[in-house]
Amino acid sequence: MLAEIITIGDEILIGQIVDTNSAYISRELNKIGVQVYQITSVQDDRDHILEAFEAASKHVSLVIVTGGLGPTKDDITKQTFCDYFEDHLVENKDVVENIREIFRKYQLNLPMLPNLQQTMVPSKATVLMNKQGTAPGMWMEKDGTVFVSLPGVPYEMRHLLQDEVLPRVAKAFSRPHIYHKTLLTYGLGETGVAERISAWEDALPPNIRLAYLPALGKVRLRLSSSGQDKAELIRSVDDQMDVLQELLSDIAVGFEEETSMVDQIGKLLTAQNRSLSVAESCTGGKIMTEITQSPGISSFFKGGVLPYETKLKTDILGVPKDLIEKYNVVSAEVVESMALQVCKLCGSDYSIATTGIAGPTKGDGEDEVGTVFIAIASPKGIFSEKFQFGNDRFRVIEKATNKAFEMLRKEILKN
Amino acid sequence: MLAEIITIGDEILIGQIVDTNSAYISRELNKIGVQVYQITSVQDDRDHILEAFEAASKHVSLVIVTGGLGPTKDDITKQTFCDYFEDHLVENKDVVENIREIFRKYQLNLPMLPNLQQTMVPSKATVLMNKQGTAPGMWMEKDGTVFVSLPGVPYEMRHLLQDEVLPRVAKAFSRPHIYHKTLLTYGLGETGVAERISAWEDALPPNIRLAYLPALGKVRLRLSSSGQDKAELIRSVDDQMDVLQELLSDIAVGFEEETSMVDQIGKLLTAQNRSLSVAESCTGGKIMTEITQSPGISSFFKGGVLPYETKLKTDILGVPKDLIEKYNVVSAEVVESMALQVCKLCGSDYSIATTGIAGPTKGDGEDEVGTVFIAIASPKGIFSEKFQFGNDRFRVIEKATNKAFEMLRKEILKN
Repeated sequence: MLAEIITIGDEILIGQIVDTNSAYISRELNKIGVQVYQITSVQDDRDHILEAFEAASKHVSLVIVTGGLGPTKDDITKQTFCDYFEDHLVENKDVVENIREIFRKYQLNLPMLPNLQQTMVPSKATVLMNKQGTAPGMWMEKDGTVFVSLPGVPYEMRHLLQDEVLPRVAKAFSRPHIYHKTLLTYGLGETGVAERISAWEDALPPNIRLAYLPALGKVRLRLSSSGQDKAELIRSVDDQMDVLQELLSDIAVGFEEETSMVDQIGKLLTAQNRSLSVAESCTGGKIMTEITQSPGISSFFKGGVLPYETKLKTDILGVPKDLIEKYNVVSAEVVESMALQVCKLCGSDYSIATTGIAGPTKGDGEDEVGTVFIAIASPKGIFSEKFQFGNDRFRVIEKATNKAFEMLRKEILKN
Repeated sequence: MLAEIITIGDEILIGQIVDTNSAYISRELNKIGVQVYQITSVQDDRDHILEAFEAASKHVSLVIVTGGLGPTKDDITKQTFCDYFEDHLVENKDVVENIREIFRKYQLNLPMLPNLQQTMVPSKATVLMNKQGTAPGMWMEKDGTVFVSLPGVPYEMRHLLQDEVLPRVAKAFSRPHIYHKTLLTYGLGETGVAERISAWEDALPPNIRLAYLPALGKVRLRLSSSGQDKAELIRSVDDQMDVLQELLSDIAVGFEEETSMVDQIGKLLTAQNRSLSVAESCTGGKIMTEITQSPGISSFFKGGVLPYETKLKTDILGVPKDLIEKYNVVSAEVVESMALQVCKLCGSDYSIATTGIAGPTKGDGEDEVGTVFIAIASPKGIFSEKFQFGNDRFRVIEKATNKAFEMLRKEILKN
């Protein structure tokens, strides 16, 4: 069972927005056993869209189209559906009522002009009612291929996909099971990992595929397989994963499907009944933002400070002024003092602290751009390490954040 | 002059990673007058890749391929290039030397196994030397279409694109000029904006296109045009943009090509010689992270605190404990006190403060999920507003962050 995703919108092709919808749709289709064969982004252009529809219908039995359903004049998806399906637009009473309801709910004045377009749908379409917005989704079929149209606004698209599309797909198509399991590793590069597991990789059975997903400071290893016997599928992948985890036991953090690095740290801290705080400088709030992305962190996360200005390291955190003057603000002594002080300030057992030069220009210190000190405080003491993360601001922040979590996790595991 | 981007990798089609490379490549090609006709993501599958190459060659004169160049066994791009170009792999001495150099630089042990594959390139290819990594890029031509292969690692891809690909494209193809200008607006929805500018939009000349790019709490409006006469092109778009900016003067923030919201705030603060600090709770560090993404903020940004635990609002910030008990931690009184205290603590002229329930579970307070109070402190005083941002954690944080910047900017403009 194959699907294609077609995203419509010039904003994608001129690079003004990153297409996050396709990744979401792919993930959700995969879960119910639908394999995405191709993702295609095309312009707001009738002929181009029609050509993409034609090409997709040759390979797949489900086409999910996003975008081009807004109330404005650059939105042409509905008219193009009419052309492809030899249909015409008609007003849909339920859509009219839904739009009225949404405007009532958000206490907006019902607009006179543009939304009236949104009440029109192709006469042959099954309307997928959009409770989160004014653009309805559509489900249409031609020569054995189902075409689904969804709005491009991510939040509306997700709700419609979950509530209306996935249940219909599950009913309309018979699908195999697809199973992925992904091991998260921190601290060794792709090449190093590949060397270590080479013999095991060569001996993998042909129905199990391995993929390497390298990122800054971490490598994810994904095993995938598909088949009709779900239990057998899971067993065979899990067995191989056990071996892989054993081979990489010193760098493996957990499975991505079950946990993120922050969730993993949270679980460990909760089990030890310990808490965490953060004092970050060059990482600019990224470590705290990553932590607070996960819900349910209030059981272990106290909070933190961002003393971006050097003076605030003394004023808020209480890092001794003479320590900064003697050793420089970017130093092991200062970052360790930050880690200690934020523990005291927040009453936490563990802490992460960072200081460094994210760039592109040098800061108050003498060090090169990319120099970062990271400290971890634990009930047993404080330690720090010095790193050189290169000269790209984004990469420095990202690498320092991943490295800090890696150091913290290792330290918690020791205690 | 049209181009297509083909990204290779199962990780994109199962939704494990979001394809950010294509947006970057599109943007950079656009700048030099190359229009991206289509973006296609295909699986790590030889036949599928060949079919995509074939299809692309019918529409465009430049195909940029990313991914599948790693040292591991799931990387098949080079072999597939050989199949398409009827070629074979040969060892390239310069690539061997480049890999040695990279391993020397990062003081790594030269691996025995996997990287040797990376020294091989198709015999007919022009090698694009990758100074940031071990996978070389390639430039090959067939029947009037140029195919470029780049690694999928974003950092390596970007350097190769800038250093090797764009200069060669500029030399090899004659291109028209493409010009975009995008107005940032905060505070009015897509429908409201469309109604307001409807008459102007209808009267736009046919060679200028308008696109709406709505996001959480903001709408971007893009005007695009292309042509041979660069000066005329810029003049005609800029003229229309002047009118548009006038029509939306109360909600327009600036032009995206020149400024982000944070840059805009930074400029205003620097001009007034004023400074900023942040006390965030429910937004979890997002506001500080957005601010510190821009380099050069140290001229106005002091830093901030994240008192996630209620107690820390008193311990770090000095919000009176009885105020929290009397009014509840999610209240106008508390958020205004946070804004005042963080100004004092950091010695700043302005501040942003947030408190609320990002969800999915209720916090210490009594309020519903999605309730957020935002306060702005300025030299003239403090004010706050209460919002309801829905029940999705990610959206609540994002909307609150955008709204906070909008409120701050308006306040600075008044002073």
